[in-house]
Amino acid sequence: MALSTNTGGQRPGESSGDWDEAREGAELYRIVSELYPICRSITGNGVRESLRVLQQQVPLSLHEIPSGTKVFDWVVPNEWNIRDAYIKNSSGGKVADFRKSNLHVVNYSVPVRKKMALSELRPHLFALPESPDWIPYRTSYYKETWGFCLSQRQFESLADAEYEVCIDSSLGPGHLTYGEFQIPGATDNEVLISSHCCHPSLCNDNLSGMAVAARLAQHLSGRSLRYSYRFVWIPGTIGSIAWLALHEKLLPQIKHGLVLSCVGDPGRFTYKRSRRGNAGIDRVVEHVLRHSRREFQLRDFSPQGYDERQYCSPGINLPVGCFMRTPNGEYPQYHTSADDLTLVKPSSMAESLQQLLQIIAALEGNESYVNLNPKCEPQLGRRGLYRPVGGTKNAGAEDAMLWVLNFSDGGHSLLDIAARSGLPLATLSAAADQLENAGLLAKAGGPRQ
Amino acid sequence: MALSTNTGGQRPGESSGDWDEAREGAELYRIVSELYPICRSITGNGVRESLRVLQQQVPLSLHEIPSGTKVFDWVVPNEWNIRDAYIKNSSGGKVADFRKSNLHVVNYSVPVRKKMALSELRPHLFALPESPDWIPYRTSYYKETWGFCLSQRQFESLADAEYEVCIDSSLGPGHLTYGEFQIPGATDNEVLISSHCCHPSLCNDNLSGMAVAARLAQHLSGRSLRYSYRFVWIPGTIGSIAWLALHEKLLPQIKHGLVLSCVGDPGRFTYKRSRRGNAGIDRVVEHVLRHSRREFQLRDFSPQGYDERQYCSPGINLPVGCFMRTPNGEYPQYHTSADDLTLVKPSSMAESLQQLLQIIAALEGNESYVNLNPKCEPQLGRRGLYRPVGGTKNAGAEDAMLWVLNFSDGGHSLLDIAARSGLPLATLSAAADQLENAGLLAKAGGPRQ
Amino acid sequence: MALSTNTGGQRPGESSGDWDEAREGAELYRIVSELYPICRSITGNGVRESLRVLQQQVPLSLHEIPSGTKVFDWVVPNEWNIRDAYIKNSSGGKVADFRKSNLHVVNYSVPVRKKMALSELRPHLFALPESPDWIPYRTSYYKETWGFCLSQRQFESLADAEYEVCIDSSLGPGHLTYGEFQIPGATDNEVLISSHCCHPSLCNDNLSGMAVAARLAQHLSGRSLRYSYRFVWIPGTIGSIAWLALHEKLLPQIKHGLVLSCVGDPGRFTYKRSRRGNAGIDRVVEHVLRHSRREFQLRDFSPQGYDERQYCSPGINLPVGCFMRTPNGEYPQYHTSADDLTLVKPSSMAESLQQLLQIIAALEGNESYVNLNPKCEPQLGRRGLYRPVGGTKNAGAEDAMLWVLNFSDGGHSLLDIAARSGLPLATLSAAADQLENAGLLAKAGGPRQ
Repeated sequence: MALSTNTGGQRPGESSGDWDEAREGAELYRIVSELYPICRSITGNGVRESLRVLQQQVPLSLHEIPSGTKVFDWVVPNEWNIRDAYIKNSSGGKVADFRKSNLHVVNYSVPVRKKMALSELRPHLFALPESPDWIPYRTSYYKETWGFCLSQRQFESLADAEYEVCIDSSLGPGHLTYGEFQIPGATDNEVLISSHCCHPSLCNDNLSGMAVAARLAQHLSGRSLRYSYRFVWIPGTIGSIAWLALHEKLLPQIKHGLVLSCVGDPGRFTYKRSRRGNAGIDRVVEHVLRHSRREFQLRDFSPQGYDERQYCSPGINLPVGCFMRTPNGEYPQYHTSADDLTLVKPSSMAESLQQLLQIIAALEGNESYVNLNPKCEPQLGRRGLYRPVGGTKNAGAEDAMLWVLNFSDGGHSLLDIAARSGLPLATLSAAADQLENAGLLAKAGGPRQ
Repeated sequence: MALSTNTGGQRPGESSGDWDEAREGAELYRIVSELYPICRSITGNGVRESLRVLQQQVPLSLHEIPSGTKVFDWVVPNEWNIRDAYIKNSSGGKVADFRKSNLHVVNYSVPVRKKMALSELRPHLFALPESPDWIPYRTSYYKETWGFCLSQRQFESLADAEYEVCIDSSLGPGHLTYGEFQIPGATDNEVLISSHCCHPSLCNDNLSGMAVAARLAQHLSGRSLRYSYRFVWIPGTIGSIAWLALHEKLLPQIKHGLVLSCVGDPGRFTYKRSRRGNAGIDRVVEHVLRHSRREFQLRDFSPQGYDERQYCSPGINLPVGCFMRTPNGEYPQYHTSADDLTLVKPSSMAESLQQLLQIIAALEGNESYVNLNPKCEPQLGRRGLYRPVGGTKNAGAEDAMLWVLNFSDGGHSLLDIAARSGLPLATLSAAADQLENAGLLAKAGGPRQ
Repeated sequence: MALSTNTGGQRPGESSGDWDEAREGAELYRIVSELYPICRSITGNGVRESLRVLQQQVPLSLHEIPSGTKVFDWVVPNEWNIRDAYIKNSSGGKVADFRKSNLHVVNYSVPVRKKMALSELRPHLFALPESPDWIPYRTSYYKETWGFCLSQRQFESLADAEYEVCIDSSLGPGHLTYGEFQIPGATDNEVLISSHCCHPSLCNDNLSGMAVAARLAQHLSGRSLRYSYRFVWIPGTIGSIAWLALHEKLLPQIKHGLVLSCVGDPGRFTYKRSRRGNAGIDRVVEHVLRHSRREFQLRDFSPQGYDERQYCSPGINLPVGCFMRTPNGEYPQYHTSADDLTLVKPSSMAESLQQLLQIIAALEGNESYVNLNPKCEPQLGRRGLYRPVGGTKNAGAEDAMLWVLNFSDGGHSLLDIAARSGLPLATLSAAADQLENAGLLAKAGGPRQ
């Protein structure tokens, strides 16, 4: 398996000699830092600019879907772009300035340029009384309005006077942009990796996911793989809906998938299962996390969250789970200006990438075999596979061979045997290789997913 | 749903404005108090008189099955009536007096009028050494004999002298009487509510069940209901056997059922599942209890107990569970004179009734829907069903809609979705109504139970 | 059931009047003591001599399989016999002497007679640094070599001098010997009891298993049994493989089986389930252990251990579990000279035998019945099966009858009903007998296993 020749290829549970967490973390952090200042939204130039940053990692292609395109129950909205926005007080001082933080503007605000009293302005203002120094993140994609987000301290300091309000934005026919990158494998069976790219200056949600996906794609590029891999960077909700609507015919090829979000904070890993609940990806991620010696939590699917909502809608129902550290909505900085470059850590992102590489190694390595000598044990010693002096306990490799032989009956994959034996998939996979070489085991026939 | 217009109709988990626990408890206690002095048995005028008391609540009808009627393996016994009974000591004082407590006579005692020595009398006496002030409750339906029950103190004070024994009873051909009341619903599918009415002056077991059933019937009367409801007040064992034998053809219509017993004491709720174990009624009662914020326990079916033994016999096997507070045999006053008007509480009976109304609301409301837009989420915002400003957490109603949409795939009822989401059925039902009104959801076709 | 007439026949959970644990323990200990000095191996005269000792208990027959016989993937090896072995130091003192402990010689050592320096000898020596007084047990069946096992203290005391090494063994064409004993029952359906007989002077592993199997066979002999019983005493691994290869046609008859090993130490009982995991034997053993009021542990099948590895190989997959006290490899004395006559206890072996007799009583007694009166309860009182005076709690026998009646619906065996009710199988079996005698119950038709 080509994957075993470098970082991405260590078998799960093993650590690879050339994995340099510090270097990888630094590179991920550099990407996030470069993406951070850009004002993204579900459409517009911010997405295009961001995807071009990721093209430094892999030659992903940009796809444009025209405004007005019908995608299932939805319609691709007009394209939004913004150049500047501010609120000036009567003395000309800016009390909210898009150039200082793009979170100050309600995302998708229509243009406005007007003087108004505080009483008229106030319904357009949003703040967080419980976190008085943070600017909230708010959007209004589908109702044409405008607004500003301020820290509670800014909001409270506003005098009852006249203000000059300016939002220099445009909202009109254009396109929804997404990025896509494919790595061909030995079969058309695909693994889908999806991350949303629509949030403005918020690091964990989801510059971390965008960057980790790009590095993951870079690591897998050029490898010899059994699955084909498809990476998409898409605006949340409307992006995955549009992508699904336009790719309905290829959905049967997608055998496994992951949504990546919030993978940069130092919290424990969280895996949210696919709607199917016991799909291959669900079992593989659980296996890798269980053998990771790191803290983690597993959750069943719920229809709240990110694009897994669409991938797992009842009429789509793909085997797609969601890989996170602290889930959206569950860290205090979520959807505020405090989700900044101090919340995400180089080492956290590197660890996330490493787990994902191990998950992919497990997907690639989860073979099913058939024991060619199923009546009693084969004589392993004759083949040099067993200790010559008896009376002692089995070595680990012998144990793994006995497990593989006993349960390779057509009904158990290596992952099934890993679950029964408690052994890591990589150990069983190595045992299977030895047994296959000795002519005692053969890959189970039939189409493999 | 018509049920939502008054007490019985609040969706489970909600409290209804016009539910007056104090008033309801007082009325239930009044009924029990009126029934308390009557000497009931499995046949005879005590049952008739008791059922007529319940006719104040609903126009239930009295049915008479002649003695000698063969009902499965049993035969309806002769009818028993009693006018008076006592034991007089040599100085003419009554040491046991039926007029003070009908428990003094072994139920179904044949007539006797005789003087006898204590040694002859003693084999006919029953007492409770472990509860020396309480009179036990004993019966001898199928072996012709007679006897008296005394408190242990009375028993021990009996001098070794001659006694005059009188039981002025009659046992001869007559009828077994039961009460029945039906409330027609939109379909022939029935819910059966059964309570035994054969115990003499014992309040919790089962005047509480008889009274709560009558009030439940009263509350449901005149409502627009999907299920038809059938209430039976029957003597224990022989009554349910006779009823089942005579109504075998309609059994397939019974889709859910509950035996009500011991629902008046202040103990926590107990639900004993049907023999099927996972019938609709089992899942509905568990759901309602879980969301009741009251203590409760669930038990699997066992062939001990009351009439659920017959409803759940292997050749009948109806989906009938048993709803109780403290189960029969598990409170010290069980089957003694201490199961009196001080053991049952107005508030306990009212709470039991309220839980039953919520169980019925859940049975009525447990619809299955099909998502008409199953590919990705529908755009709820366009239909006014979603908050216009994004970036915040979902409101509860939105969450409920997402759960209903995601799992209304033909394989999940609202109750299934309630179990997965942890949301109360009523919240999901309200969400389903909104989605149905918006044209996004339709009731699942096919026959519904 | 004839089993109920003596020790083996008490229903599980009951104790039999004529079970004399002290007498039985003494006899088991006597057998182990007689077997202890014999040097056994997977072939050779030690096995024959041991089996002849067991013939004092039951007339088991000795079977001989010629060296070179192909048995599945294996070949029956040459026969090994040994007369003497020692290491002499330069002054003629024996530093290791086969006559003191046959563990001193690596089992299956080829003959050697040579003087050599310590440096040449050392690679042939085995000791246990962590247990410096114990001699390890080592084998080399399939690689022709020789060796000696010493205590660590002996090993360390060896001077750097010349030694005279003698192993007076022979390895050449001969036979593999096993013992077999059958008890015919009413049907050809068989219960297989297997114990390995290849270890030299090790008491718990597995003279205990050999002796307990022989006594079990003795207890069952001459009984009226529904199952036929087959006992095999076989050398580990190669013996069970050879037996399976030569008896493949009769394997479908084997409905239950147990491997007996390490049943003489005072540790709690351990049952290792068959590979099927929920076979009849697995459920029966669990039932008996749960009702034994003794400590026990249950384990799922794993492909490590003794001959269950072969019986449960994927192409054989017999319903054979493994009954032990402390499992192989989990007590410190395992495979050392400390597994001697002080490790095994008469009472421990007698208890093991008693549990096995109860397991067999449960296998024999696990009948399935059909309720002939499935609609409502039958009137037990009319048949004298119910207390005449009502109002009290059920007696245990009545409870058992109600459980048997309610679940004898064609889908539940007595063992299933035991699991649901928590009652011992013997109680249910007695209730079933009563109900069958009353014409209320009949044995379920169809082939029974």
